[in-house]
Amino acid sequence: MGSLGEPLEVPDNQKVEVVPATIVNHAFAQTAEDLKPILHEWIDRPLSVVEFGPDADAFFGCKAVSTGTADEISSKLYGRGEQLIVDFGSHRVGYLSFHLGVEGVNIDAPARLRITFGEVPYDVTESLHPCYTWISTSWLPDEVINVDWLPADIAMPRRYAFRYVKFEVIDTSAKYKVRFADIHVRAVSAVSPAAVRCVAPLPTDNADLTAIDRISQLTLRNCMQTVFEDGPRRDRRLWLGDLRLQALTNYCTFQDYRLVKRCLYMFAALPRDDGSLPACIFEKPKLSAASDYIVDYDALFGPTVYDYTVASGDVETAMELWPTIIGSMQKALSHLDLDGKFCSDATKSWKFLDWSEGLDTNAGMHGLILFCCREIDKLALLIAKPAPFTSIVKRMTAAAASFYDPALRVFTSGPDRQISWSSQAWLALAGAMDPATCLAAIQIAMANPQAVKPLTPYAYHHVAESLARCGGEDECLKLVLEYWGGMANAGADTFWECFDKNDSRKSPYGDCHNNSYCHAWSCTPSYLLRVVLKNHPI
Amino acid sequence: MGSLGEPLEVPDNQKVEVVPATIVNHAFAQTAEDLKPILHEWIDRPLSVVEFGPDADAFFGCKAVSTGTADEISSKLYGRGEQLIVDFGSHRVGYLSFHLGVEGVNIDAPARLRITFGEVPYDVTESLHPCYTWISTSWLPDEVINVDWLPADIAMPRRYAFRYVKFEVIDTSAKYKVRFADIHVRAVSAVSPAAVRCVAPLPTDNADLTAIDRISQLTLRNCMQTVFEDGPRRDRRLWLGDLRLQALTNYCTFQDYRLVKRCLYMFAALPRDDGSLPACIFEKPKLSAASDYIVDYDALFGPTVYDYTVASGDVETAMELWPTIIGSMQKALSHLDLDGKFCSDATKSWKFLDWSEGLDTNAGMHGLILFCCREIDKLALLIAKPAPFTSIVKRMTAAAASFYDPALRVFTSGPDRQISWSSQAWLALAGAMDPATCLAAIQIAMANPQAVKPLTPYAYHHVAESLARCGGEDECLKLVLEYWGGMANAGADTFWECFDKNDSRKSPYGDCHNNSYCHAWSCTPSYLLRVVLKNHPI
Repeated sequence: MGSLGEPLEVPDNQKVEVVPATIVNHAFAQTAEDLKPILHEWIDRPLSVVEFGPDADAFFGCKAVSTGTADEISSKLYGRGEQLIVDFGSHRVGYLSFHLGVEGVNIDAPARLRITFGEVPYDVTESLHPCYTWISTSWLPDEVINVDWLPADIAMPRRYAFRYVKFEVIDTSAKYKVRFADIHVRAVSAVSPAAVRCVAPLPTDNADLTAIDRISQLTLRNCMQTVFEDGPRRDRRLWLGDLRLQALTNYCTFQDYRLVKRCLYMFAALPRDDGSLPACIFEKPKLSAASDYIVDYDALFGPTVYDYTVASGDVETAMELWPTIIGSMQKALSHLDLDGKFCSDATKSWKFLDWSEGLDTNAGMHGLILFCCREIDKLALLIAKPAPFTSIVKRMTAAAASFYDPALRVFTSGPDRQISWSSQAWLALAGAMDPATCLAAIQIAMANPQAVKPLTPYAYHHVAESLARCGGEDECLKLVLEYWGGMANAGADTFWECFDKNDSRKSPYGDCHNNSYCHAWSCTPSYLLRVVLKNHPI
Repeated sequence: MGSLGEPLEVPDNQKVEVVPATIVNHAFAQTAEDLKPILHEWIDRPLSVVEFGPDADAFFGCKAVSTGTADEISSKLYGRGEQLIVDFGSHRVGYLSFHLGVEGVNIDAPARLRITFGEVPYDVTESLHPCYTWISTSWLPDEVINVDWLPADIAMPRRYAFRYVKFEVIDTSAKYKVRFADIHVRAVSAVSPAAVRCVAPLPTDNADLTAIDRISQLTLRNCMQTVFEDGPRRDRRLWLGDLRLQALTNYCTFQDYRLVKRCLYMFAALPRDDGSLPACIFEKPKLSAASDYIVDYDALFGPTVYDYTVASGDVETAMELWPTIIGSMQKALSHLDLDGKFCSDATKSWKFLDWSEGLDTNAGMHGLILFCCREIDKLALLIAKPAPFTSIVKRMTAAAASFYDPALRVFTSGPDRQISWSSQAWLALAGAMDPATCLAAIQIAMANPQAVKPLTPYAYHHVAESLARCGGEDECLKLVLEYWGGMANAGADTFWECFDKNDSRKSPYGDCHNNSYCHAWSCTPSYLLRVVLKNHPI
């Protein structure tokens, strides 16, 4: 998740409205607390020292050139204005430590260092300040430290997400220089290195797909901490829509059912007085609901429980969370007119779907809510409850036809009959029409240069999944290779919050230095590829 | 102590030469370690919130205006770009803590703060960066901190010296602001608040002198930590010449003999292989000698032991340190020619006396070494040893006449027959001529606008003391009132490392932001005033 807007100006949907009161369910909160994982920890060390030189062909316009091995780091001295960039070889989430050695006739002043943690080259090739962004610049991954007594062992107390670490010596004194030794990270994740090794390999020899799968898994692992974080660099919290995609990918990789269950109970612990669920949860310093509310995220709670139940076989959880699920649909269903057609304008509540500019959400939200109703009905079957939404599903399926333009063979949305990829995707996932019709609609929209395209990997996921679910397995693979493969070719170690192959500085926040480059909602290729390749080997 | 030079260029005397090996005396080091004080600690809180407005009449061009009481601090919220300056009412050395509260719908990002510790208004009214100075900018008293989980109790781990603390909110997020509460300092000193209260009041009703005495004592107390530091803000270490002045002031105020003894043993633990003593000692991370060497500081070790013995009555220490004292004179005496006249050019070793530009040190050093020989001879008498320097004193006293110009009635120095205050002061303190002749020489030099004036409080001290010792008590008081009183009138809470009444930005380092405003060698008025007022009541 994240938020879009002009630099330095907070977008309307991020402005704070009156937030319904939270009715804390303390028993659920305790269940979540009891499921809190003890994180796995391991030590990693940098592989090399690098400098960045210009490279016109590279996505970021530069390439890392190794200027020394990790073993050579401690042989060099650094004084005022000098810097060292180390490369850990891939993305890590954890706590940096190092030994700050010293050499000179007098160690007669503190050492002042700036330490910058880079997920991508720009983080360490450019100054992060000033940062022209409307979200908090406190997320910028740099620290200035002053060390009084040298030599010293430095353990940075905060957690960072990075591949590169830049050490800038702001000052020592004229009489001494520092040396860096024993640089290492205590990496952390809810996923153990053993669990990573146990993931069944992707059933293909295709090197590109295998690489994409590896990057997806690393993205997910590094977001799996004491909750499913949306990004270990920035935001670092639990969003409902993002959780669903992470959980799906987790089931076919690391299979950590406890962490999903914990997160489900965290949401269920914090319903609002109208039964709706917050879009986002804060875990620290204490469990609390964010003020953010998103209609689609609210409704996706039930499908997330359904996926969990199918994957884990734990029906007790679904039974216990059933009233929460029913409550979480009320706000969404209040948007249906008498014919069962979703009207985005029925409330001012935020309908997200994607950050694409100008996206009309009527059709997509109709599809999404219909999808949710169907999934919850399926869950009811699993736990021997009457399906609550059969008549609504019937009405909404019928009403879905009103979004379909038989001449253009696509779904349109809103008074301007907008054609977007997201509208097709969600109505397809909802089974609003037969699969062939839906597949054709997605393909036609994708071929239409006027159609509103997705902006985020979150929306790309739903397009890709809708292709796979409607018989468009090849098209799904093509999209995965093009979009996520594009990031891989651009040098991604983990998949990014947003990606525009033509603009490496693109940011929803006005300044790419505040982007997150290991972002939960981008981790789904491991899931998509397993869905596709299961019945569609290549 | 400190060092003079052009901005960003290290002066020649600060460049590193070959340093003789240190022959550690482990027994003396252990004695020093055993004398390490447990610091007294107490809690102080800010008195008010201030802003600074322009004031053309004020030394720093601005005045503090109270905008609220300390009690009101926690009622206000601070967001991006806002700041708070609190005023502790006077100078403190210690560890800052505060509670960082929070208010908003979502605490959805870390808080990034810059905390700046101000001894004088400029520290908090201006940005400290960039700082155009050749000494280490790592001394600049500011920190940037990032706080992940709010609310939080923040305990800053480093020690600072300050009256003002500026809290700048670099960022929170659009959804919350912070509040500051329970701001306090855990102040530290080797001197207990009780010891401060027990100091005998100055025998005078003169309010200006009483104020100067109070500021002197605060300066000394705040420099008295686990060693006599030269400045609690910058350098924070033990210099020999500075120690002597602090110790003299300590004897007539706090009477902490143990701390002086500890510092004497620290120097005695680290002689060089030619018997000389380093100018400066590092206490942390482990006891070690600085490479700095100053001929006059070396020679002043004996007089410092003599003062200690007279004040404390502890003759055992003087007996144990006697070989060190004899060793510490060798380098100085190697500068004497066959007639017993000091020749600065005899070695390249640094002769300090003062930072005044172009000061010729021949005459002043002759006086200083003669003074040291006389003091050590007096110490020999106290510990029943033969006086080692009687014949040298005789020769040097005779040779001193060659510096005297009977026509001008002043001492001159060097081939250009330079007239300086420092030359007169040290030859007077040495008793090179009778007191009346010496007093006249000082007064004539002080009245001569061409004479080289002192630059530092260290040199002003020796001029003031030489006046007092030669019958110029009134002139001494006048100088104290003019020079140290000038700092008091300019708003000093503690006396400064350097002071030019016409230039509040004057710095030996190129940038006044790297000056120290609580500096050991400026603390002597409490001593000078007691010397004068004892026999010369006003």
